Amino acid sequence: MIFSSSLLENAVNEFAKLPGIGKKTALRLVLHLIKQDAEEVSQFSNIIAKMRNEIKFCSRCYNISDKELCNICSNTMRKQEMICVVENIRDVIAIESTQQFNGIYHVLGGIISPLDGIGPGQLTIDALVDRIEKEDIEEIIFALSPTIQGDTTIYYISKKLKGQPVKITSIARGIAFGGELEYADEMTLAKSISNRIPVENFIVSGN
Amino acid sequence: MIFSSSLLENAVNEFAKLPGIGKKTALRLVLHLIKQDAEEVSQFSNIIAKMRNEIKFCSRCYNISDKELCNICSNTMRKQEMICVVENIRDVIAIESTQQFNGIYHVLGGIISPLDGIGPGQLTIDALVDRIEKEDIEEIIFALSPTIQGDTTIYYISKKLKGQPVKITSIARGIAFGGELEYADEMTLAKSISNRIPVENFIVSGN
Repeated sequence: MIFSSSLLENAVNEFAKLPGIGKKTALRLVLHLIKQDAEEVSQFSNIIAKMRNEIKFCSRCYNISDKELCNICSNTMRKQEMICVVENIRDVIAIESTQQFNGIYHVLGGIISPLDGIGPGQLTIDALVDRIEKEDIEEIIFALSPTIQGDTTIYYISKKLKGQPVKITSIARGIAFGGELEYADEMTLAKSISNRIPVENFIVSGN
Repeated sequence: MIFSSSLLENAVNEFAKLPGIGKKTALRLVLHLIKQDAEEVSQFSNIIAKMRNEIKFCSRCYNISDKELCNICSNTMRKQEMICVVENIRDVIAIESTQQFNGIYHVLGGIISPLDGIGPGQLTIDALVDRIEKEDIEEIIFALSPTIQGDTTIYYISKKLKGQPVKITSIARGIAFGGELEYADEMTLAKSISNRIPVENFIVSGN
């Protein structure tokens, strides 16, 4: 692409650095911003800069936060005895959006994956063990991806927690709601049979 | 989506205002920026704000410009007697990227389209006629979309230029390079036969 304006070119190049944004999309976004009011664009750039400069990681659960302690950790209405262990911030947002979980979180910052060079030392596992020792935790729920790496991480952390008086659970694995049995992989189907649940446990959902 | 941080939420909402960017993509982009160095993000936001505040439209051809007169208009190496008339800035970038045109431009800002409520008055047609009268223009080349609206615009402007000693041409229409005859629409195929060109006019391109 050849630009006759370096202001335009620089802006397009900045957008094109974002993941999944190519040069053509970047140009479309920049031309859109040119058409907007100057105040709106300055608001856009201010909010992005402010977000990057002021955002923190919660000192307790490593969730993204506006303050030292995140909104979830500092919310006294939530069960402080129940920790949901997740891989990343995206998972916190996904679980919060279900509005079904009323405990607190612990964000690992990844899962153990030797092939990607991620060992336990790069994750917030020690901080989690520390929390279990110091806080009055009754249950930790692993909400990790149902993969070898997820299982390895659960196994590793469970071993570290041996002897602690804490209940350790994992989110249920099985056939997804609306999924069809014939397309489920064998592993999932086999596990869903061995981990079968009494029908009276079914929760009849509103929608 | 439920966010535990309003800094994060505001940034996601700003990105989601851009065309073609949904909430999930916006979240992905913001989480990417959080992982970058603070200086890089501040550079991103500064370049966007600077672009919007400082960018101008060339007073002569209405192309996007860093100065009063755009780089193309002020380049004395380019043929100032040959104007290529285009719909928008994107078309200037597309033609410049071919590196085949050495004249100057005139950006209409749209094409005549009564159904979309765009009449000649909203376009820079008067300014174009003015340029033809005052500048020493030998040829104007219409590079507009081959649609009814494009043809209407060409017809309208040509009528306005009647009596002016200027050659009026249009970019060639026909089967696209690499295109297959059987998939070409009838209109294009018919026009490509009636507007056939001598084989010696073929330019053998390097690539």
